[in-house]
Amino acid sequence: MSFTSDDSVGLVTPQKFSFEQPLQLECGRVLPRFDIMVETYGTLNADHSNAILICHALSGHHHAAGYHHAEDKKAGWWDSCIGPGKAIDTNIFFVVAINNIGGCHGSTGPTSPNPENGNRPYGPDFPLVTVRDWVKTQKMLSERLEINIWHAIVGGSLGGMQALQWSIDYPDHLHNCVIIASAPKLNAQNIAFNEVARQSILSDPDFHHGRYLEQDSYPKRGLILARMVGHITYLSEEAMKQKFGRDLKSGKFMYGFDVEFQVESYLRYQGEQFSRNFDANTYLIMTKALDYFDPAREFEGSLTDALAQTKCRFLLISFTTDWRFSPARSQEIVNALITHHKPVSYMDIEAEQGHDSFLFPIPLYVKTLRNFLTSSLQPIHEA
Amino acid sequence: MSFTSDDSVGLVTPQKFSFEQPLQLECGRVLPRFDIMVETYGTLNADHSNAILICHALSGHHHAAGYHHAEDKKAGWWDSCIGPGKAIDTNIFFVVAINNIGGCHGSTGPTSPNPENGNRPYGPDFPLVTVRDWVKTQKMLSERLEINIWHAIVGGSLGGMQALQWSIDYPDHLHNCVIIASAPKLNAQNIAFNEVARQSILSDPDFHHGRYLEQDSYPKRGLILARMVGHITYLSEEAMKQKFGRDLKSGKFMYGFDVEFQVESYLRYQGEQFSRNFDANTYLIMTKALDYFDPAREFEGSLTDALAQTKCRFLLISFTTDWRFSPARSQEIVNALITHHKPVSYMDIEAEQGHDSFLFPIPLYVKTLRNFLTSSLQPIHEA
Repeated sequence: MSFTSDDSVGLVTPQKFSFEQPLQLECGRVLPRFDIMVETYGTLNADHSNAILICHALSGHHHAAGYHHAEDKKAGWWDSCIGPGKAIDTNIFFVVAINNIGGCHGSTGPTSPNPENGNRPYGPDFPLVTVRDWVKTQKMLSERLEINIWHAIVGGSLGGMQALQWSIDYPDHLHNCVIIASAPKLNAQNIAFNEVARQSILSDPDFHHGRYLEQDSYPKRGLILARMVGHITYLSEEAMKQKFGRDLKSGKFMYGFDVEFQVESYLRYQGEQFSRNFDANTYLIMTKALDYFDPAREFEGSLTDALAQTKCRFLLISFTTDWRFSPARSQEIVNALITHHKPVSYMDIEAEQGHDSFLFPIPLYVKTLRNFLTSSLQPIHEA
Repeated sequence: MSFTSDDSVGLVTPQKFSFEQPLQLECGRVLPRFDIMVETYGTLNADHSNAILICHALSGHHHAAGYHHAEDKKAGWWDSCIGPGKAIDTNIFFVVAINNIGGCHGSTGPTSPNPENGNRPYGPDFPLVTVRDWVKTQKMLSERLEINIWHAIVGGSLGGMQALQWSIDYPDHLHNCVIIASAPKLNAQNIAFNEVARQSILSDPDFHHGRYLEQDSYPKRGLILARMVGHITYLSEEAMKQKFGRDLKSGKFMYGFDVEFQVESYLRYQGEQFSRNFDANTYLIMTKALDYFDPAREFEGSLTDALAQTKCRFLLISFTTDWRFSPARSQEIVNALITHHKPVSYMDIEAEQGHDSFLFPIPLYVKTLRNFLTSSLQPIHEA
């Protein structure tokens, strides 16, 4: 795979969109201004009816497909599904991928200068943002891009929660909503894992109450631990068994605390890599946004009532071995939609990769996604 | 419940058994001498045929039942199952509970004086011990107690692994083997969770390469994190949902990193409590013993072959919502025993408490355990 292959979007250049107006957030605080990093793939058609918004998950960002330069070895995080002829076909659609505020890939977040504090990095002073806040900024971006109605809003995991929130908050502004490997809210076990990740970071002496950048420090140990525990929940028990089993790195027990089992080596490596490229405050913000998400909350706990005002078609996809957000969690959304006779398709895809399945080009999954997105193209054909 | 209730073993006094001979360990090292802390409940009969050995799990010890003093609020860790008229009936049986070496409750372990280092605490110099090492020391204790054949050896989780190892290593010295909520070996996911717990401790700056006692320090943060992540795996998703759901401590979102959800409060409290009473080096040792356990390993991976030489009756018990050691893991042992026509009973108990179920007096579980233990009492009746 490279940027010259037939099904790659090729070389892409991120763009920054600046919003110089105050943003009222759900937590009660106001962000004086903000930037959103964006990448687009494909071409917007004349009547702006072929746009698809990609919402990212916990560690995602705007670089969802293609390559940044000719020597780039790694494509965008969802390159398996976005490109010419792929599930989200850039020959047909204009695809917009963003980095949410609070992130650490160029959009305004904890590493950005705080204009209210002499442009020192926000750090822990960056407000806790919610899925609803993100959707609000995504709507502002839509207006900037002159996209009044998205052909589809698509997201996996935390990204699926944003797609769901769009269908509730802006029902007239999307035709299709695709929610993959997601849930209508976290359960106690999900929150518990997030809490372990947060405590790993918060209790790291190098965290310095979140002001590590100003201290020329970094809570590397905490971030590694947070990622390790997260990573376990992204993989299925079966996938780990097949990938590592009880394989030993040196072929025998060493009776010490260096790496003995291959799975230890893998987790340490993943944690280490992640800790180099991710901001600890952003990790905290993302896990809190997950915890807070619960659109049924202001409808006295009724997801059915929360979804009553939606107008789009829905596609829900879950994966058989996903235990972070099990198929039952997707089915909660499906059932709530069915109660109101909303148009919803649902597919539980046989897959071994657990929660991470949504990042893999599993044939039935790709086909389901592609068929759903292209099966309501009337507005585009009329254009 | 108190020490005066009818079904309590009442006040108990721990005893220390000292072994002043060198102990060859599986890792290749030798322990010059060791102590084992023991509690006993009930009365040993004349022909010493009514003895039951209780093997403990990761954080367990010799105080399995009863109370240490009149004001003691908390009974031993398995008081729900050990006592007059209970599943392990002290009116019938002489019950022996121990603390394994490497532990931190009085048996020789990392906090004990190291005679080879001027009696400074062993700390990280305490050798990594295995399930087989523990079983070897338990056999030595049996000889000291003049118990040639145990009526039963019983254990849950890591304790069940010790019972299983007994049946292989000393087939002539137990009549019954009871393995509860256990597994024939850890899988990659189990090892991964243990590795997160270990890295939490090892990366805590207060760990001081394991010499924290000499530094008047303590890796409290690491131990809290290790326990938090462990605790999640002990509870079922359903139990957490029922116990905490998404309940908020203050009734509303606070948009900060203090406790918001009840489940966070619970986990932090559990971690905090645990960190006060447990030694970090012991935690490391226990998780490694779990990782190493794999009796099939020296039989080219064949559990069936490993169990060929066993002579006792087996009872396997699993719990429907246990995802740390799922029912399928118990069934691996059952199936291996059936292949060799070994006498094995198996019960998968409907229970909501996940892995922790083995600590609860669930009626069908208690009845199953009691019936199995009392259904082969001929030797006792003949006495």
